[in-house]
Amino acid sequence: MPIITLTTDFGIKDHFVGAVKGAIYSELPDANIVDITHQISPFNITETAYILRNAYKSFPDGTIHIVGVDSELSKENKHLAIELDNQYFVCPDNGLISMIASEVNPTKIVEINIHNHINSSFPVLDVFVKAASHIARGGSLNVIGKEIQELKKLVEIQPKTNQDKSIIKGGVIYIDNYGNIITNINQKLFTTIGKGRSFTITAGRYKFTEVFKSYNGIVDYNIPEEKRQYDGEKLAIFNSAGFLEIAIYKSNLETVGGASTLLGLKYRDTIIVEFEDVVKPEFIPINQ
Amino acid sequence: MPIITLTTDFGIKDHFVGAVKGAIYSELPDANIVDITHQISPFNITETAYILRNAYKSFPDGTIHIVGVDSELSKENKHLAIELDNQYFVCPDNGLISMIASEVNPTKIVEINIHNHINSSFPVLDVFVKAASHIARGGSLNVIGKEIQELKKLVEIQPKTNQDKSIIKGGVIYIDNYGNIITNINQKLFTTIGKGRSFTITAGRYKFTEVFKSYNGIVDYNIPEEKRQYDGEKLAIFNSAGFLEIAIYKSNLETVGGASTLLGLKYRDTIIVEFEDVVKPEFIPINQ
Amino acid sequence: MPIITLTTDFGIKDHFVGAVKGAIYSELPDANIVDITHQISPFNITETAYILRNAYKSFPDGTIHIVGVDSELSKENKHLAIELDNQYFVCPDNGLISMIASEVNPTKIVEINIHNHINSSFPVLDVFVKAASHIARGGSLNVIGKEIQELKKLVEIQPKTNQDKSIIKGGVIYIDNYGNIITNINQKLFTTIGKGRSFTITAGRYKFTEVFKSYNGIVDYNIPEEKRQYDGEKLAIFNSAGFLEIAIYKSNLETVGGASTLLGLKYRDTIIVEFEDVVKPEFIPINQ
Repeated sequence: MPIITLTTDFGIKDHFVGAVKGAIYSELPDANIVDITHQISPFNITETAYILRNAYKSFPDGTIHIVGVDSELSKENKHLAIELDNQYFVCPDNGLISMIASEVNPTKIVEINIHNHINSSFPVLDVFVKAASHIARGGSLNVIGKEIQELKKLVEIQPKTNQDKSIIKGGVIYIDNYGNIITNINQKLFTTIGKGRSFTITAGRYKFTEVFKSYNGIVDYNIPEEKRQYDGEKLAIFNSAGFLEIAIYKSNLETVGGASTLLGLKYRDTIIVEFEDVVKPEFIPINQ
Repeated sequence: MPIITLTTDFGIKDHFVGAVKGAIYSELPDANIVDITHQISPFNITETAYILRNAYKSFPDGTIHIVGVDSELSKENKHLAIELDNQYFVCPDNGLISMIASEVNPTKIVEINIHNHINSSFPVLDVFVKAASHIARGGSLNVIGKEIQELKKLVEIQPKTNQDKSIIKGGVIYIDNYGNIITNINQKLFTTIGKGRSFTITAGRYKFTEVFKSYNGIVDYNIPEEKRQYDGEKLAIFNSAGFLEIAIYKSNLETVGGASTLLGLKYRDTIIVEFEDVVKPEFIPINQ
Repeated sequence: MPIITLTTDFGIKDHFVGAVKGAIYSELPDANIVDITHQISPFNITETAYILRNAYKSFPDGTIHIVGVDSELSKENKHLAIELDNQYFVCPDNGLISMIASEVNPTKIVEINIHNHINSSFPVLDVFVKAASHIARGGSLNVIGKEIQELKKLVEIQPKTNQDKSIIKGGVIYIDNYGNIITNINQKLFTTIGKGRSFTITAGRYKFTEVFKSYNGIVDYNIPEEKRQYDGEKLAIFNSAGFLEIAIYKSNLETVGGASTLLGLKYRDTIIVEFEDVVKPEFIPINQ
């Protein structure tokens, strides 16, 4: 039985999540339902895209992802069922999938048209569960919708570079559970533009000249453990999702604080990477 | 294997939820456990009833709902196992079920009497899991308890009408994840009393003369998208649970705010519907 | 198929939890994944130990517990797979298990050495899921790691007693969802030292001379229900985990408040039990 995941802004207190799960089990007693998150900020499509893009790739082929964020049907917000990267997405056409599908083209997109015979004051419960159940039973997308070619486009703020490619101007796209700042600059772009040159990253009033591969990259293990003082130190890292992240070593929002608050940076603020002319010999990190 | 749901005020940090799930799997390796919520405000029976009433109906017949809110055994707070609407509830007799069962009569109620041979310092873990497992295995309620006829009554604040049925005086029963205000006035009552007449709903210092069927009912799609300004607008709607709700279009508690804060309304505050003498022609909405 | 539980500080908004679950299902389509909690305060090992110690015992033999708290690999923070009490733990060697295993000795401990052929920028996703899947398939611990004898020790603040055993000096180890204060003084220690003597517990500026067996132990059911005023009353209790707890009857952090705030006590604060010389006749409670 395929997995059905849920990504919503329903929160975890109201009856919405429970009701949707009950409806899925009523259709598919053997369903395997997985919560990705229900804590999306209400109606926030950028957040939804960031989280779902980083989560869906771990799931096996055939997984069906239901997205309940800003899903009320209107003539401008159709409901879609999409095959993408050997997985399925049942979601509103609010630009979300264009952000997830920026690297991979959807195999098939249908505009769901089963609304006529469904009472849909709660479309995730009614329409999305029906559509996902149909797919889970091996049904074709064409049975539940009309094939279309175009998704509504919504483009996340994109990093920019200047003509001589000495600067990347990026932005903050997400603040995570630890208060760490995720930028839209991925490792591939950084490497392609940087070509191994030295660099300075400017995030608020802080500067970084090294990007670590792990959080404890800043730790000097030659210093005896009891003398080390790294908790709360700022560092730049390529995170596990492949993005440049400004982090705090062992950040704790209740004690040392998180990068977002400590650096005073929030969603959409600018992050600058300036590359120097001098080529940095590869694999030899420069000390800050 | 029947589904076992959990509705508690345990929160999601402590060991309570994990321990209860472990105990269920120890009894029933194939159990299908579904969290309805663990975020009930501590000991709040009204909230529990609102959430469970709206969630349980989606579940298939035979589902067993464990309710761990104010469940400590005392001579005034017995433990019950109930068959209702082809589903089962294992819960304390604290009035909760009387609020859920206001529309449907329980088929059978037993007062659980397996406490003698169970160490029950954590009754949900010990007693409720044992009772639910017994039911899940197809066991009869009479084996785990003594049949009784009466539930403890706890009546949610009820809407009232005046003698000439021109006014409904209702109240706020729940504030949801979006900050929207749920009243105890359901669509059936509204229609029965209103008989298609024009009306004015008073919620705090705001008035509404229309109830929409969907949140985007207020949107005029003839206005170009970039010129529309609906985010944060107040509206009245019959929500998916069938209750009159005062909502904010695309509310976000962090930005535009929620209805509860914007209108200054909280749990148990009064909502008034005044119907006019003139009959409103049905299906033609009156502009505000 | 064994159960795999997750205990992390990932929170429930980011993609981390969803990604890890997807990775587990990709390895083990029939896995039964249970969230213990994802709300551990970032990097807090003491909290992790308290929660996991109280939750794991309910699970059936063979359950595999993945712990994702402070799990970044370093030469001082190895990754372990442990067999303990007929269950398995895949976790960092950061002292956590020494706190869980204080009562039961591990049957086997291996230092995981499968990192060479795994890209591990997100070790819970990569290394821990691989290790847990190996164990779930019935694989031997020796295949994924090198057997070791010693765990890193991290000892939770321990209660102390004086030479004539008239005083126990304990501390606060956890504040739960209700704001109740959990101490490190367990019932066994209390009974062994106390030997049935009268006692006074001092918690902040409050004193208690009785420890109840249930929260409603303080209620006098001879008083008519409408005249009772117990909500918000302080009491001492041995909680379901066996520890001395300072609680508030029907505490609600939003209304009457919780014990932690009302008594002004926080993590690591001191709790004193003073036993009197006079032996208290057993089973006869002394009024406060």
